[in-house]
Amino acid sequence: MSAPLGRLIGLGTGPGDPELLTLKAARYLAEADVVAYFAKRGAKGNARTIVEAHMRPGIIELPMIYPVTTEVHKDHADYINPINDFYEDIAKQVEDHLRADRTVVVLSEGDPLFYGSYMHLHVRLAHRYPTEVVPGITAMSGCWSATGVPIVQGDDILSVLPGTLDENILAERLVDTQAAIIMKVGRNLPKIRRALAEAGKLDRAIYVERGTMANMVIAPLADKADDIAPYFSLVLVPGWAAKPGQDLGFALQMTEGLV
Amino acid sequence: MSAPLGRLIGLGTGPGDPELLTLKAARYLAEADVVAYFAKRGAKGNARTIVEAHMRPGIIELPMIYPVTTEVHKDHADYINPINDFYEDIAKQVEDHLRADRTVVVLSEGDPLFYGSYMHLHVRLAHRYPTEVVPGITAMSGCWSATGVPIVQGDDILSVLPGTLDENILAERLVDTQAAIIMKVGRNLPKIRRALAEAGKLDRAIYVERGTMANMVIAPLADKADDIAPYFSLVLVPGWAAKPGQDLGFALQMTEGLV
Repeated sequence: MSAPLGRLIGLGTGPGDPELLTLKAARYLAEADVVAYFAKRGAKGNARTIVEAHMRPGIIELPMIYPVTTEVHKDHADYINPINDFYEDIAKQVEDHLRADRTVVVLSEGDPLFYGSYMHLHVRLAHRYPTEVVPGITAMSGCWSATGVPIVQGDDILSVLPGTLDENILAERLVDTQAAIIMKVGRNLPKIRRALAEAGKLDRAIYVERGTMANMVIAPLADKADDIAPYFSLVLVPGWAAKPGQDLGFALQMTEGLV
Repeated sequence: MSAPLGRLIGLGTGPGDPELLTLKAARYLAEADVVAYFAKRGAKGNARTIVEAHMRPGIIELPMIYPVTTEVHKDHADYINPINDFYEDIAKQVEDHLRADRTVVVLSEGDPLFYGSYMHLHVRLAHRYPTEVVPGITAMSGCWSATGVPIVQGDDILSVLPGTLDENILAERLVDTQAAIIMKVGRNLPKIRRALAEAGKLDRAIYVERGTMANMVIAPLADKADDIAPYFSLVLVPGWAAKPGQDLGFALQMTEGLV
């Protein structure tokens, strides 16, 4: 009996604009036997939508439907137990395809190993099957490119901060860095706004919603009137803005007519 | 007299593997009138090498040759004065093409607004000419994908630290984060190694040289026998490695046969 020929490909789809797929991602999609993707119940999922034009007729689709939503707190047993069972179950489903010599592409919005759900399959399967990770344009990279704001240069430190952190930790981190990206905004927005104000950086913060997609929103966070944000919105605090002669007004002006 | 039709495109080429260009980058290269790129004297430059297959016959090439090297300290007047004159001069050369209605693509290794030289053209021209920034796969993203190491997940904080920082600052920052990327390694490697040891994280650090290129090197930093590193090498400290049941040995094992 020979070893199975199945391959696992963790494939970054980029942040939303289908043209931000890499050439390698397009090639692997053309070669794939199975395309697996995470989605919420009743939704197709952003990653699957991004690759629509690359889905070969007859390809096997494996939707992986999250059993829980972000409405349950992530440290609560009602979240942890179902989610662990879910990852075990889908790893087994993917493995069945690998053992049948199929190449399985697992889609990941943005970049697979950067806060992506793909990692839960990777740690269960990558040491046992030939595996490759195709990096994708991260949401943060898509967002700072769309705003046209130089994010870091020279000796700048960049801190990537999940918006789920406590307010005082967020504020301390924001004081202590040149540039920051705040991920996972969603219902954490009021807290993030307070932390930025405490750190004296609210006036430099840029809010980006659905970055690189057709219905993208870019605004100085201080000008955003409400506290409603989708989970995958971002806040950028550019490092360059701190340089003499460069301010945020100038930076945002650059993108006029592009957004 | 109508406004010039020239467009400025800051274009990320990704970290090295030509297949990590985006579909959008390939399209803009096909449409470009001028391709400008930074290079050292006597060298073609990585960015220009990456896009070789996409260079249209007859396209105008604009090499932008750095007047100084990293051998001069960046805070010294012998560096600052020539480099400022250089940026002013190349901005004027690019502007001449824009005023002649040409689309100028400026190549940037990795991502244009993430520690890229392109930014110096962007801040001089983007508020006066139609401009678009095409994000690229960052070197760090290429490197963690190549190693197969989940870099951040959940509430992990990621700190991106230039290796040019002082040793004590590096060590403090390394203690105070789940995951870290140390950029601009080069001749800073001995200092980086000491800072990692002080922070108790040397055994988790992964050294990556020429990430995603054919001659890539990946090794636990603790196993690297010498202190010789190219400027564009990276050190990764994965956040996931801190989780129970996951260690670096396991993570690196994943990539066996792929590198």
